[in-house]
Amino acid sequence: MSRFLRQGLKTLVPYVPGEQPRSVKRLIKLNTNESPFPPSPRVLAALGEGETKKLGLYSDPTADCLRRAIAAHFGVSADSVVCSNGSDEILAFALDAFCDREIGMQTPDITYGFYPVLSGLYGIPMTVRPLREDFSVDVDAFLSGRETVVLANPNAQTGVALALSEIERIVSADLNRLVVIDEAYVDFGAESAVGLTQKYDNLLVVQTFSKSRSLAGARIGFAIGAPSLTSDLETVRNSFNPYNVNRLSLLAGAEAISDEEYFEKTRREIIRVRESTKAALAELGFDFPPSMANFILARHPRISGKALSLALRERGIIVRHFGDERIRDYARITVGSEADMAYLTEQLKEIVGG
Amino acid sequence: MSRFLRQGLKTLVPYVPGEQPRSVKRLIKLNTNESPFPPSPRVLAALGEGETKKLGLYSDPTADCLRRAIAAHFGVSADSVVCSNGSDEILAFALDAFCDREIGMQTPDITYGFYPVLSGLYGIPMTVRPLREDFSVDVDAFLSGRETVVLANPNAQTGVALALSEIERIVSADLNRLVVIDEAYVDFGAESAVGLTQKYDNLLVVQTFSKSRSLAGARIGFAIGAPSLTSDLETVRNSFNPYNVNRLSLLAGAEAISDEEYFEKTRREIIRVRESTKAALAELGFDFPPSMANFILARHPRISGKALSLALRERGIIVRHFGDERIRDYARITVGSEADMAYLTEQLKEIVGG
Repeated sequence: MSRFLRQGLKTLVPYVPGEQPRSVKRLIKLNTNESPFPPSPRVLAALGEGETKKLGLYSDPTADCLRRAIAAHFGVSADSVVCSNGSDEILAFALDAFCDREIGMQTPDITYGFYPVLSGLYGIPMTVRPLREDFSVDVDAFLSGRETVVLANPNAQTGVALALSEIERIVSADLNRLVVIDEAYVDFGAESAVGLTQKYDNLLVVQTFSKSRSLAGARIGFAIGAPSLTSDLETVRNSFNPYNVNRLSLLAGAEAISDEEYFEKTRREIIRVRESTKAALAELGFDFPPSMANFILARHPRISGKALSLALRERGIIVRHFGDERIRDYARITVGSEADMAYLTEQLKEIVGG
Repeated sequence: MSRFLRQGLKTLVPYVPGEQPRSVKRLIKLNTNESPFPPSPRVLAALGEGETKKLGLYSDPTADCLRRAIAAHFGVSADSVVCSNGSDEILAFALDAFCDREIGMQTPDITYGFYPVLSGLYGIPMTVRPLREDFSVDVDAFLSGRETVVLANPNAQTGVALALSEIERIVSADLNRLVVIDEAYVDFGAESAVGLTQKYDNLLVVQTFSKSRSLAGARIGFAIGAPSLTSDLETVRNSFNPYNVNRLSLLAGAEAISDEEYFEKTRREIIRVRESTKAALAELGFDFPPSMANFILARHPRISGKALSLALRERGIIVRHFGDERIRDYARITVGSEADMAYLTEQLKEIVGG
């Protein structure tokens, strides 16, 4: 730490991303919930040499082509959409813009690890509302409290989803309190709250191209909400980094979200493989919360989460283990390709002696 | 503005980027200081379909390949380098991290318009030290004061450069005060202070790939400084957006900075065209500060800066006009290709009746 770091940041603990091995050749990477599929063929076609040659020019700071494509996909107006360099960035803009520095935010105890980091970065007080024993969100606990509500749906780490009616209960409980729903994993089986943004101006929905759109490396996120909210987010974005989405990602994102057929095909395949993997895991004696995401948080009575992760690593499979007390018996396994999951199941069988 | 925007941001005035016209087919774009050249052929070769297919995977959050390439180019250690999504982002990280919220920052009156915006975003008090009459930086004014010093060298808008010895005077005047030198335009004729970072741990040098590396659309910036400073910046970066540079830009940047031959050829050509354009402008009766950047801030006794910009726009050339009182008689003209500048000169001749 330098002597120049300002006081407020001296105790900041940054987010620790999942490992990105230098070479993925011999490793099956099931630790950061990426898609097992390449991007849509339309993305590959769009990013040819002609576009690469234009990289000397700035990207469109209004992200117009991408915002229009997202708006068309969801049937909302383009001014309801703000784009960002990954969804972490739009979450940061939103919490910075909308969290009262006295009242702060409220979020479950087990959820995306980035929320407490942002709370530290911006000095936003964080109220933690524990998940129920079965890892479901305690909706009643989020009906009161003036703090901005931040929920991932399906929830990060657990994959457990809230019904849309439950989200609406939280949003409508207090129209003067903002609710941020992080839908990074929504396309794998949960109901999106985007439709509710047309009815409630205290709801912001955040999504990403990193999971169901197979574009984690392109860094594209976005938020949908009432134009009063998105214009505030544009103010923050333009005060921080007006050209925040690069040229090629603007093109890639517009193509990816327009290719509904490829999107449907790949997300359905991931859901199918998730369900067959769940069945195989259950047969081996694993238990897990009912994941509606592209990962499974699984534990086995005969091995700790950490030991399981290490044993898989030795067999060339990387999964993620979290130290939080409530989930440290588990390992979080991304749903990869069918072949990857078959290999995983084989290895797990040997490890747990099923 | 929504009712949710926090108090501290209600008066925030965002940065206004130069216009990015939807179609650049019939317009000569000399308003945002982009390079007239495409990126290095090595960049084009690196971003093939094979890499596009891997966009489903996250980028390396340590930006290792890019940091190493930058470090090798400058002869510094890789841990002295932090990469960002454009240099605006690393400037934001640096000012957020290192500006004391009571003492703040000091910067010239005429400089990059993004500094006051960041001051507003982060609530950093800003002390303004006017440029001299000839637009040179008043170095003596920056020797005292505890505020973090933020200087663009060459300076934005004017193109006027400070000698390295002057930068060192400012840095060495107070070793307990941080100095940030923004070298966006340094490759067009000024001396870089990167070497001084090996001697002074209170100096941070910021550069970009958007100008001399012909990669504005890829969004790559970086900072070089003592590892104590860069590790603080990594803390902020990892608390904000750990995957802040996308996969293709990491590759593009590493290739671009390794291709010394292409870099030398293109930057020398831009300098050559700048000097011949200066001569042509002088002949038409324009005057301008001595630009060491890839733009010329020019004015003519017979036409206002705004009228000049509009007249050029009508002739298919976009330049930038700023409303600040001290430079509103001027138009800022990016140094484009030789052909573009010949066309510009022709049009200016007609406009000012030279």
